Amino acid sequence: MKKHDQDYMKLQNRRTVFGIIKQQHPISRAAIAKQTGMSPTTVSRIVGELTELGYLVESEQVAAAGLGRKSTLIGLADGSVLSIGIELDRHFMSIGILDLQGNVICSDKRVRPAEEDLEETLRRIGAAIEELVRHHAIDRTRVVGIGIGLPGIVNNDKGGVVFSVQLGWKNVPLAERLKELTGYEVAVDNELKVRALAEHLKGAAIGSRRTALLGFGNGVGSALILEGEVYRGDMNSAGEIGHTTVDPNGMMCECGKAGCLQTYITIRSLLSEANQIRPIQTIEEVFEARQAGERWAIHLIDRALDYMAIAINNLVCMYNPDSVILSGELPDRFPGIHEEIEARCSSHFVWEPLRGSFRFHHSELSEWGVVIGSGLLSQNRFFQL
Amino acid sequence: MKKHDQDYMKLQNRRTVFGIIKQQHPISRAAIAKQTGMSPTTVSRIVGELTELGYLVESEQVAAAGLGRKSTLIGLADGSVLSIGIELDRHFMSIGILDLQGNVICSDKRVRPAEEDLEETLRRIGAAIEELVRHHAIDRTRVVGIGIGLPGIVNNDKGGVVFSVQLGWKNVPLAERLKELTGYEVAVDNELKVRALAEHLKGAAIGSRRTALLGFGNGVGSALILEGEVYRGDMNSAGEIGHTTVDPNGMMCECGKAGCLQTYITIRSLLSEANQIRPIQTIEEVFEARQAGERWAIHLIDRALDYMAIAINNLVCMYNPDSVILSGELPDRFPGIHEEIEARCSSHFVWEPLRGSFRFHHSELSEWGVVIGSGLLSQNRFFQL
Repeated sequence: MKKHDQDYMKLQNRRTVFGIIKQQHPISRAAIAKQTGMSPTTVSRIVGELTELGYLVESEQVAAAGLGRKSTLIGLADGSVLSIGIELDRHFMSIGILDLQGNVICSDKRVRPAEEDLEETLRRIGAAIEELVRHHAIDRTRVVGIGIGLPGIVNNDKGGVVFSVQLGWKNVPLAERLKELTGYEVAVDNELKVRALAEHLKGAAIGSRRTALLGFGNGVGSALILEGEVYRGDMNSAGEIGHTTVDPNGMMCECGKAGCLQTYITIRSLLSEANQIRPIQTIEEVFEARQAGERWAIHLIDRALDYMAIAINNLVCMYNPDSVILSGELPDRFPGIHEEIEARCSSHFVWEPLRGSFRFHHSELSEWGVVIGSGLLSQNRFFQL
Repeated sequence: MKKHDQDYMKLQNRRTVFGIIKQQHPISRAAIAKQTGMSPTTVSRIVGELTELGYLVESEQVAAAGLGRKSTLIGLADGSVLSIGIELDRHFMSIGILDLQGNVICSDKRVRPAEEDLEETLRRIGAAIEELVRHHAIDRTRVVGIGIGLPGIVNNDKGGVVFSVQLGWKNVPLAERLKELTGYEVAVDNELKVRALAEHLKGAAIGSRRTALLGFGNGVGSALILEGEVYRGDMNSAGEIGHTTVDPNGMMCECGKAGCLQTYITIRSLLSEANQIRPIQTIEEVFEARQAGERWAIHLIDRALDYMAIAINNLVCMYNPDSVILSGELPDRFPGIHEEIEARCSSHFVWEPLRGSFRFHHSELSEWGVVIGSGLLSQNRFFQL
């Protein structure tokens, strides 16, 4: 066997072992060997290397079940590697520092003025990181990088924002600029893709092999995780369901097409239609009006829920996932709609042969999903996972 | 390194080498080594083994460019492995015998009465195979299996037809039954999935990394090939776009939902609506009426083309493919609609940011795509590719 092949295989084996430890720690060397089919010697070598690098610790010995023998378990040195996860949205910025397990060890959330320009946003990201690191006495040498999740189309290879309607950005070399500013490696991705990754690794969809996540809020979108990896498509824009056509005779969308899904279900669209009736500032008011039995509000929200169920049907027909996760501001702020959407799906909105084919999950990481996913993305880059 | 790992790697290397030879033959050992990063010794060993099994031949030496040296090229022993590919549809059955390169070396196409029952279909498949093998003096020992592509939801692992509206089948253990009858290993899959595979390996989308294929005909569906592999989803029913909802206020579909894509574009739906106007037997008559300027026919076909463009938009938003292939009876029988659909896509039916993101292809294998894909599927099973 050639050197090249052996090196590649060593790297692969190391990834495999580290991946298993991350998911199943504490775990014994023997269990790793059993799962991977690697020899105990290979496993021991890899564990030794990773321990030397400071990523693993041996936890105390425990008695193996019923046999009286003792087995040493391998655990993660949680704080040996840290990363910074950031969610950037039109109206806020969330930031967290994550350990190796994806735990948020400290965090901050700040309002972002909608008119804030790029330079100011960059400056404030830098300041927020600085403050968090100082305030919590974080060891800077352990921070391996920054991950950022945001709404829009992102070139995740280069870390550039192709465009983001919500942030008002077009062709922003975000990773490059932020690396200049902070010195850290920066990974950038679409918010729903990292959120789905987080739910897969730490949240609602652990163990799922084909996870589809939908986001309903100021925007609408989806993401697919296949066998643990984000499905990106050719330009990292797979899952852009907001502009799938769900009624060619429907309302005009800002994109120039008619009847795009987003015209029926985003908070902005709903508010814009509600304001045909009377001045309304927040989506809460619309839900209150619905609660109070106002017909226009009932129509507006019921129609939105219908289209959410349609979005789920269309996604399920195309991706055939085993799990569907509902996320975003709307289900987060109005948890009652989960049930209403699910009821629509199981009555007749989802094509009958696929009706029982997937598990329905609520987002578990809600407010921190994007921060966690972004931070984990940054760690994955560091470990070249 | 453990024996287990080495065995796995040997198998992987063998697959890689064989795959390259299949795609690029004739090719030199040196070129294979260069592409794979394997050592010349490893490549020679694998080539030797495959030659011994009869799958490869050394073609005559050719002068390496400009150097005066000679280089031996490796080619496929095309006829060393044969497989039988079958397309089963409501109204016909096509059958072909394929060589290692996916060339159809002999074939037959027969009408299938719509009311034909399962037993009769099985009997006739067996007879058709028998006749083809005899008539063309095929060496039976070289036939490694049968592949069948059909419309419907197929359990491709077990080779069972979960259900097929077109064939009127539900829970048919097709592979098992046909193996009993013929003695050959049988692989069964959805027709569009094998067609997409064929176009990827032998047709319009060679070299594409994310190929989406659409089928417009008696049914409507799609398939996605990711990095050379069929994306199946959890139940092998990914790509079932026929029941995506494209207008919740639209026509009732036989599935019980309203506004399913298939209600606007399948031949059956179009004929059913056309018959509201006057008795019409074939889709050709509808196209002729359109040509003659009859308003109802213009409306019906234009609307169908609109919805085909919508289907492409929705597919492109969700899969973000690099290639989109149009296939099926409608584009095959009315090649002019290709241009009309493409024009719709590039004017405003496809979301602007994705408009230039994919190449548009016509199906190249048309009538024989499913036969070729099914035959290749059977060979892939044999070689465990």
